Amino acid sequence: MASQLTDLSKLCIHTITTKPWQIEQSAEEFGKAGVGGISVWRDTLEGRDITKTGDLLRSNGLEIVSLVRGGFFPSIDAIKRKEAIEDNRLAIDEAEMLGCPMVVLVCGAEPRNSLEKSRAHIRDGLEAILPYAENSKVKLAIEPLHPMYADTRSGINTMEQANEMAEFFNSDYLGVAVDVYHLWWDPHLETEIYRCGENDNLFAFHICDWLSPTVDMLNDRGLMGDGCIDVKNIREWVEKSGFDGFNEVEIFSSRHWAEDQHEFLDEIKYAYLNHS
Amino acid sequence: MASQLTDLSKLCIHTITTKPWQIEQSAEEFGKAGVGGISVWRDTLEGRDITKTGDLLRSNGLEIVSLVRGGFFPSIDAIKRKEAIEDNRLAIDEAEMLGCPMVVLVCGAEPRNSLEKSRAHIRDGLEAILPYAENSKVKLAIEPLHPMYADTRSGINTMEQANEMAEFFNSDYLGVAVDVYHLWWDPHLETEIYRCGENDNLFAFHICDWLSPTVDMLNDRGLMGDGCIDVKNIREWVEKSGFDGFNEVEIFSSRHWAEDQHEFLDEIKYAYLNHS
Repeated sequence: MASQLTDLSKLCIHTITTKPWQIEQSAEEFGKAGVGGISVWRDTLEGRDITKTGDLLRSNGLEIVSLVRGGFFPSIDAIKRKEAIEDNRLAIDEAEMLGCPMVVLVCGAEPRNSLEKSRAHIRDGLEAILPYAENSKVKLAIEPLHPMYADTRSGINTMEQANEMAEFFNSDYLGVAVDVYHLWWDPHLETEIYRCGENDNLFAFHICDWLSPTVDMLNDRGLMGDGCIDVKNIREWVEKSGFDGFNEVEIFSSRHWAEDQHEFLDEIKYAYLNHS
Repeated sequence: MASQLTDLSKLCIHTITTKPWQIEQSAEEFGKAGVGGISVWRDTLEGRDITKTGDLLRSNGLEIVSLVRGGFFPSIDAIKRKEAIEDNRLAIDEAEMLGCPMVVLVCGAEPRNSLEKSRAHIRDGLEAILPYAENSKVKLAIEPLHPMYADTRSGINTMEQANEMAEFFNSDYLGVAVDVYHLWWDPHLETEIYRCGENDNLFAFHICDWLSPTVDMLNDRGLMGDGCIDVKNIREWVEKSGFDGFNEVEIFSSRHWAEDQHEFLDEIKYAYLNHS
């Protein structure tokens, strides 16, 4: 089994998790709570000086783990594919300004095309932005998404597919973000996590839980321990593969967003220490 | 590409697809429409003489393709696991009475156990009922379910897993039901369909479509052509693998159930001939 988590130094929380809070409040509350890291969703930066926001996060004792999110490369419309590439370059710029080492990619899918075609668009998009990322020294993490998002959100739905894509480019700046929500069901998850680690491609680890029943396909994720995912077991595999980064809590949940976010933050801390 | 479908002789409709109709009305309407086959959901047989219902279906010109559904083997409760085995034997009895050659299995999953444990329960359940099925000459078809149902409905979520399970038992009476809704996203679908055919394990082919957006995880399936699945392409693979059985339309859809079912039946016929 993975070692017991005894402090919050490796806990990172995504800004989307406490969506009702502005990023300034998240910074203050996470900092006060002793949380070690923050992953920043791009919408929270709107209207801010990004460099100063980065300084603010750090001044609250937070390590900036990742910027979320780039990707969405496939489209039947060539102009939109170009715009997506431009937007990914912008995300890399934003990460650099923020002082953030990594952009997470939700690779996208076009329901009017085959998945093979969408995957070709993803490869083309990565090819277009990877030199830019390398030049900026910003890493890109492909996040495989659950197959229920294969129509519009990602044509990369298993660790194997993410591994293949990362290995195809074989760059120090392209790797994989493992999210238990998307991958827990995959019968090859353990071996593909080890493969990912062996190739130095395991860049990030996202945690939450799968509720039974899940009543909404997007915004009904659970806190660790409230669902059917053995998060600790997957963390063991991830750590065995050599990963020693943050455990990032990324929860989209209408019901948790409706709570007092201070109480929710306490629940996150408890779930992190007891069910992760 | 798969050959164009030019008549309804290989069209089978699941009773659940036209859920507002009692089975007697489905039989009459499907028969009048020239539909070739019917797959019977067990709830539609409640309170009926099953043998006579089978005769009624056949007298309307319908071939009885499958009885839906058995399975649901995993549980943390040993008594429930025993009850599931009994219920599967009952389903086999019902199929025999109905004059139906096959029972479709939704294998089940127990969210309080690991998927490995659920799969062991599935194997134990199959081992317990397979001799009974062989003796009754009723085939069992494992239907891999979409990974979004891995928590409570099935620990078998890919063709590869279904193939492995069927090959483990290596019986003429255990095979696989391929449903495009559950499997369209699978990057190994084509090769695993061929593998299934080579082992004479491809027993059934279910069709519908995946809508974008899908607003309900259970009851928002689409008619062929209304979503992102290339049904014809998958039918080509299935036929290449040697399958020459029915194309079974299995649609759970609150919005289609709210329609006039005569109009819906017309739509099914159109979608079948033009988008399957």
